[in-house]
Amino acid sequence: MRLALVPVNVKVGDFAANVKTHLHEIEKAVKLGAELVVFPELSLIGYSPQDLLLRPDFPARAEAQLKEFESSVAKQFPNIAVIVGAALPLPVANATGPTLKSLANCAVFLQGGRKEIRIKTLLPFYDVFMESRYFEPAPSFGPEYSGPIECNGKKLGIVICEDSWTEQTLLDRKIHNHNPSAKLKEQGSEVLINISASPFDAKKKPARRQTIIDAARAVGLPIAYVNHFGAQDEIIFDGDAFLYDGAGELLANKQELNGEILLIDLDRTKPITEKKIANLELQSLEAALVLGLRDYAKKNGFSRFVLGLSGGIDSALVACLAVRALGPENVFGIAMPSKFSSSHSIEDAEELAANLKIKLFHVPIKMPHSTVQMGLKSAFPDGLQGLTDENLQSRLRGITVMAFANQLEALALATGNKSELAMGYSTLYGDLCGAVAPIGDLYKRDVYALASFINQARHLIPERTITKAPSAELRPNQVDQDSLPPYPLLDAALELLIEQELSPAATLTKLAREFPNLDLTLLESIERKIRFSEYKRSQAPVVLKVSAKAFGSGRRYPITSFF
Amino acid sequence: MRLALVPVNVKVGDFAANVKTHLHEIEKAVKLGAELVVFPELSLIGYSPQDLLLRPDFPARAEAQLKEFESSVAKQFPNIAVIVGAALPLPVANATGPTLKSLANCAVFLQGGRKEIRIKTLLPFYDVFMESRYFEPAPSFGPEYSGPIECNGKKLGIVICEDSWTEQTLLDRKIHNHNPSAKLKEQGSEVLINISASPFDAKKKPARRQTIIDAARAVGLPIAYVNHFGAQDEIIFDGDAFLYDGAGELLANKQELNGEILLIDLDRTKPITEKKIANLELQSLEAALVLGLRDYAKKNGFSRFVLGLSGGIDSALVACLAVRALGPENVFGIAMPSKFSSSHSIEDAEELAANLKIKLFHVPIKMPHSTVQMGLKSAFPDGLQGLTDENLQSRLRGITVMAFANQLEALALATGNKSELAMGYSTLYGDLCGAVAPIGDLYKRDVYALASFINQARHLIPERTITKAPSAELRPNQVDQDSLPPYPLLDAALELLIEQELSPAATLTKLAREFPNLDLTLLESIERKIRFSEYKRSQAPVVLKVSAKAFGSGRRYPITSFF
Repeated sequence: MRLALVPVNVKVGDFAANVKTHLHEIEKAVKLGAELVVFPELSLIGYSPQDLLLRPDFPARAEAQLKEFESSVAKQFPNIAVIVGAALPLPVANATGPTLKSLANCAVFLQGGRKEIRIKTLLPFYDVFMESRYFEPAPSFGPEYSGPIECNGKKLGIVICEDSWTEQTLLDRKIHNHNPSAKLKEQGSEVLINISASPFDAKKKPARRQTIIDAARAVGLPIAYVNHFGAQDEIIFDGDAFLYDGAGELLANKQELNGEILLIDLDRTKPITEKKIANLELQSLEAALVLGLRDYAKKNGFSRFVLGLSGGIDSALVACLAVRALGPENVFGIAMPSKFSSSHSIEDAEELAANLKIKLFHVPIKMPHSTVQMGLKSAFPDGLQGLTDENLQSRLRGITVMAFANQLEALALATGNKSELAMGYSTLYGDLCGAVAPIGDLYKRDVYALASFINQARHLIPERTITKAPSAELRPNQVDQDSLPPYPLLDAALELLIEQELSPAATLTKLAREFPNLDLTLLESIERKIRFSEYKRSQAPVVLKVSAKAFGSGRRYPITSFF
Repeated sequence: MRLALVPVNVKVGDFAANVKTHLHEIEKAVKLGAELVVFPELSLIGYSPQDLLLRPDFPARAEAQLKEFESSVAKQFPNIAVIVGAALPLPVANATGPTLKSLANCAVFLQGGRKEIRIKTLLPFYDVFMESRYFEPAPSFGPEYSGPIECNGKKLGIVICEDSWTEQTLLDRKIHNHNPSAKLKEQGSEVLINISASPFDAKKKPARRQTIIDAARAVGLPIAYVNHFGAQDEIIFDGDAFLYDGAGELLANKQELNGEILLIDLDRTKPITEKKIANLELQSLEAALVLGLRDYAKKNGFSRFVLGLSGGIDSALVACLAVRALGPENVFGIAMPSKFSSSHSIEDAEELAANLKIKLFHVPIKMPHSTVQMGLKSAFPDGLQGLTDENLQSRLRGITVMAFANQLEALALATGNKSELAMGYSTLYGDLCGAVAPIGDLYKRDVYALASFINQARHLIPERTITKAPSAELRPNQVDQDSLPPYPLLDAALELLIEQELSPAATLTKLAREFPNLDLTLLESIERKIRFSEYKRSQAPVVLKVSAKAFGSGRRYPITSFF
């Protein structure tokens, strides 16, 4: 049986447009020879609509949308089987969730007027997920909402994303109480189809595949998998699609993640070997960030970006990504030297702009800076403290970038990285201005790695930008390392403190060999800074998420904290 | 039996300090003659530590803290019974939650070396609550963690907050699958004790009491209730405490919500009558906002506030609240006239500052404004668009306020109200600058009501501030009503669109009688503006929550949305 996995790029809440997109993709799949066309989780409404799901008018609109889609499919593709994701109000027979919800996260199977609904059992609420806020799990519904579905002579077991995350453990126990796949196997399913909405993680793609391999092996059934493609706010979906057999062998694979259909033969038994791709992780990271930027802009009605170019590595990398997302004619750089800026800052910004073929504006902040200082003279006759004055310059740059954003109807990009965001080494309403922080989930070392990777293909970022010591240039001869530990040490520590949430003491143990002079006091001060700068991050731009623990909605720390 | 309900004000994550606070309160309660001292939900760690609960070092520290507390209680108060709230790792016997968690939300009973643990059954996952992200519910644990506790001859049934929210319904069904109180009654409980962490809501106090009355009546048992006192980030706890009998009659009541102990006699049977207090709702609203401001500052290590004073009603009200929170000597106003400011703006700001006895600085933004305009001339020779220029002025004020915040080590207060925040009628990095938005959950009509209420007691806010038409004064003769519908109509519509999440059509139906000329187009445009300004709110300051649907962590709408 030929099955099309469609990593579709839909718009959250755009009921009408998403139906059209689905019909268009089915048409393409049919031309490729598909008998069954499979879309990802909640494909009809997009992932995730969040509290839109709580609106009283949601259920009726979701049902109307599905009805429209059903009748179009029945008319246009009477012989084709289709699986889509939908959030539907369904009669709750036997509610078991702790608190009753009015919706279910569904897979809807349609073929020749036939309609079957299957419901998600395992609802994640870790990281960015809040599904138990909205959905009632499968056990609450009657038997008509479970069991395999017969399609062209094959018994399909449909599972939804987390339903396959059954092999995870905590305290030596499986974290989930049900294994929907095991039940589907008992009921005679010959193949599992997992429709997903799984956020991109530079390191997760292999991890996610391993999860699916483990799930396939646990029940000895093949699994076909399809994820969303495209970005929704901070979350990027990579459009992954593949087929493993019940022994965990790869039978079909979508290597290039571009949102196009993967056609697979469900009866295939011969494993394939994946092509080895050099720098695959950096390549997907770049592609994901570009996708995240492009979708954020387009889906919010913007076609231009503006950003400050300091001559440093962070803004250079963001400019490269921005150009790849929207094209050089739609990216505008601004050089905003202060009295502390070195001549190389401007030169490097100019060289970068020339390499990228983007327009560069020059707006020095010296004059506004001294005017504001003068205005504050009556209140503070002894002059401004160092921090006040540094923030002032950063904020005058922020104001300038935002003025360009308003004038050009462009989105401002914040150029801060994860190391800075973690340490609060950034100015609220200054360099933190912007709609999106494209590299806010990249530690400084990842920024260098990605910049070098991009430069390998084509020399875009000036050499000096990569080799010089990072500096905010807000006071004479300032470099980052005056205020921060050396980046290799800092980044290694941050990864343990943030990603793994280790204590400073546990972090010290892990790092002792690599950094023999490291002491607990430094790690404790790093942790204090992470904790103390929570308030800045609470007002930060959308940080494109590319790791398991990004700053944003998946990491919920209190601002006021004494832990 | 004499029972002390202690609405304690603890610090999230401050294990050591909270133990001291508890011991100190027990001492006070004992002096009042208490035999049993009851603290609120999660009292030992504070509500809510959020993802601190996921840290690998949390469980051991929570157990060590409890051990320390236990031994102090046993030593210092050998005859006194104590109930505290704690988050503890416990052996999971029979996990039933959809995904296994490593912690339980517990009530710990201690008396003369005896220790009993009871576990929360109903874990809320709506509004600001995310308890199923962290906790395993009661049914997952053995019988030793349930059932009544014998104390001085009385059988106590202990429930935790949501455990009493059993009478709520959805789709004509009870939303919760268990009623812990009913089981406790079966097992012989004579009285229920509810330890809570329930956010303040100007309209919720009666609603919350009704919920508890319904729960008491449903099982025919008296309920003693105690809530936290104090604020944690956006959430304010009012310190409510009371006793109802099984028929829903009030037997004891804490009328003034000040964090002090309520001593009750559990054997009392005679109902009391509540004193009628005029303007109770506005009085508690003011007290809650003052508490929220004071605790945010103090718990984050600040003792000063700074804010821009425009002569308008919003900043005037915020100044009054700030003065009540930290005293006039710790509040600093800044008048920042632009070339569009009217003379009355300055006069009104001066009169307010004089009435409040706070220091007022004058920092005109005319000069910086024209300097920045000049700097942008080369990029935009035709001058700046209206919106760009308006935002510029607002942002120069933001920069100024932040410079004062840095210089004075003060927290900047944002003065925007809920109507503005809803409509995006505010400038990101401009008037949205600040650590806290004290009136960000008050519609404009509530701002007027609270301002008038405050002025009744003492004339603080200048008359003209209350009577003149609201204006941002960012262009000549501008008033809010140029850009916004009249506030009475707008606020009525916003309440239905936001609080009740009605569609524009449903809103029209509800408002048709009061506003006969209202049409759907206007409501649709209001809704679009709410939706479109989600990005601004995602970078807004902490909004003190005083309603059921505040902007903040309890309302999770996507920025990118086509609904």
